[in-house]
Amino acid sequence: MVRVGVDENLSPDLLVDFPSEAEIIRIPRNAAQEFAIDFWILPFARKDAAAAFSRLTGVKVVQSMMAGVDWILPWLPKDITLCDGRGIHDISTSEWVVTAILSSLKRFPLYRDLQNRQEWGGQAAVRDGYMNETGPQLGQYRILSEDLSGKSVLIVGYGSIGAAIESRLAPFGINAIRVARSARSTPEVFPVSELHRLLPHADIVITIVPFTPETDKLFGARELQLMKPGALLVNAARGPVVDTDAMLEALNAGKIRAALDVTDPEPLPPGHPLWSAPGCLITPHIAGSTPEFIHRAFRFGAAQVRRYLAGEPLENIVTDAGY
Amino acid sequence: MVRVGVDENLSPDLLVDFPSEAEIIRIPRNAAQEFAIDFWILPFARKDAAAAFSRLTGVKVVQSMMAGVDWILPWLPKDITLCDGRGIHDISTSEWVVTAILSSLKRFPLYRDLQNRQEWGGQAAVRDGYMNETGPQLGQYRILSEDLSGKSVLIVGYGSIGAAIESRLAPFGINAIRVARSARSTPEVFPVSELHRLLPHADIVITIVPFTPETDKLFGARELQLMKPGALLVNAARGPVVDTDAMLEALNAGKIRAALDVTDPEPLPPGHPLWSAPGCLITPHIAGSTPEFIHRAFRFGAAQVRRYLAGEPLENIVTDAGY
Repeated sequence: MVRVGVDENLSPDLLVDFPSEAEIIRIPRNAAQEFAIDFWILPFARKDAAAAFSRLTGVKVVQSMMAGVDWILPWLPKDITLCDGRGIHDISTSEWVVTAILSSLKRFPLYRDLQNRQEWGGQAAVRDGYMNETGPQLGQYRILSEDLSGKSVLIVGYGSIGAAIESRLAPFGINAIRVARSARSTPEVFPVSELHRLLPHADIVITIVPFTPETDKLFGARELQLMKPGALLVNAARGPVVDTDAMLEALNAGKIRAALDVTDPEPLPPGHPLWSAPGCLITPHIAGSTPEFIHRAFRFGAAQVRRYLAGEPLENIVTDAGY
Repeated sequence: MVRVGVDENLSPDLLVDFPSEAEIIRIPRNAAQEFAIDFWILPFARKDAAAAFSRLTGVKVVQSMMAGVDWILPWLPKDITLCDGRGIHDISTSEWVVTAILSSLKRFPLYRDLQNRQEWGGQAAVRDGYMNETGPQLGQYRILSEDLSGKSVLIVGYGSIGAAIESRLAPFGINAIRVARSARSTPEVFPVSELHRLLPHADIVITIVPFTPETDKLFGARELQLMKPGALLVNAARGPVVDTDAMLEALNAGKIRAALDVTDPEPLPPGHPLWSAPGCLITPHIAGSTPEFIHRAFRFGAAQVRRYLAGEPLENIVTDAGY
């Protein structure tokens, strides 16, 4: 037997794949009593996680369903095995990245605004200063939309999500440039030390790095300045990977565009200038959150519990070296 | 020599590929005089085209840069060779279709509205009635976004744009179902007579047919009723291919969603109920319009002029049989 702790509100639909040897223990969010469990599946609500953990005893394994575990490391004792959700977000997050890129290039935020105003705004509706720099203005043919075809896409933090992004962009006819912490080959991945050399070559820059002291403000004023005029910065990593003040300055100057699922601060408060910065698309940290993702996550959780029961090595163990 | 008529405002950048044997004649939009030309490249502005044609003499070939030539056939004499723009829209239009699908599934119109309201609306922000029918409501995990992965996509009017759409959707892990006027194999294409049988199997239905008497209102109340609850109808063809009243009823009932680059009437007037119908994304007929497209179009036009000069067969000749 293994005692598996889950959030009190978890849908029974998500537990159908768990083995019969798993005793499911629902952990209330607000209760004083302690619970003895072996294997804890973290709730998604971050603010409750540390408090819930303080009421657990006997925990041997903590399984997060998130790719980034930066927020767990500060309060989790080092002798407990921590497993992250690497791989389970590949589909939903890579799909969000492609959506964010295409929506930006095809001006879908502009067209949404026009739809809300009930304006059939074709060519005359486009007012976008930076486009004078980055695209040809061909007489009557104003820029209503841009092709993804032929663009150079720099993927910074090339792991399993990065590879999933590249495979979905490939048939559009893009040129992929890959960066990770250390160089690799097949496919060619450049080390992050070459980031400054590579930035000026990209029409689209995607950051999908884990948040660590090394990636904190990886994109600051210098990096944004090195980007092509009008290039698109896509942040699907963590907000603080980009220096918000520097990004605001670059956006307001019409130097870059941005598509963000994460921000710093997060949640972004009403009145923050990023909300209305020109050329900036924002979604509220939902890139990975699809119902299909939740099912994939708990199928993975069930497989981890089976491995634990069988005495097999767990997958996705977070180590200091690997993270 | 060949006398090539083009719109008066055409950018010189677009004429660089034309052979020196082509005498370029710019046709004013508003002028009484006649112009003798051999090869006419139609202006994009439809309202001016018929009037401009009435002032041309000696025309042997009319080259349209649009895939759909339904609007030209009524006023063009049958003894003039008409060539359409088949193929030159494949990239831009297929990219629009993928953008429209992903934006709808990922709720980007909703998030744009939230951004405009400066609201960081995560799970609590989603209010979308039909989702209770089509997706699981998993306790705390509301539907913020859907995966494209695993969806069945019915492409109605499978030609060169349809194939371009399929190749871009393929790495997302979709199941493509293809329909054209007549059946074909490799890949398997079903005849339009099987449309009713196929409609209930699709999560996403794309119409990219030419507008002809046979495709006028191809999607009426019966066809929309056959769609899966919550399925997405994408119209990148012509507005009247879908019966607007029937679509409005299906949208208002939460039966389907829609993503439209074309409407009937078009332009869609202010106050038309389609603008604010639930689950409906509208762009103002811009799917094919990218600056890269314009360059591709005039490179093709230059190649046609070279073929004409060399006495070679022209490409994309519109015949009654083929259209």
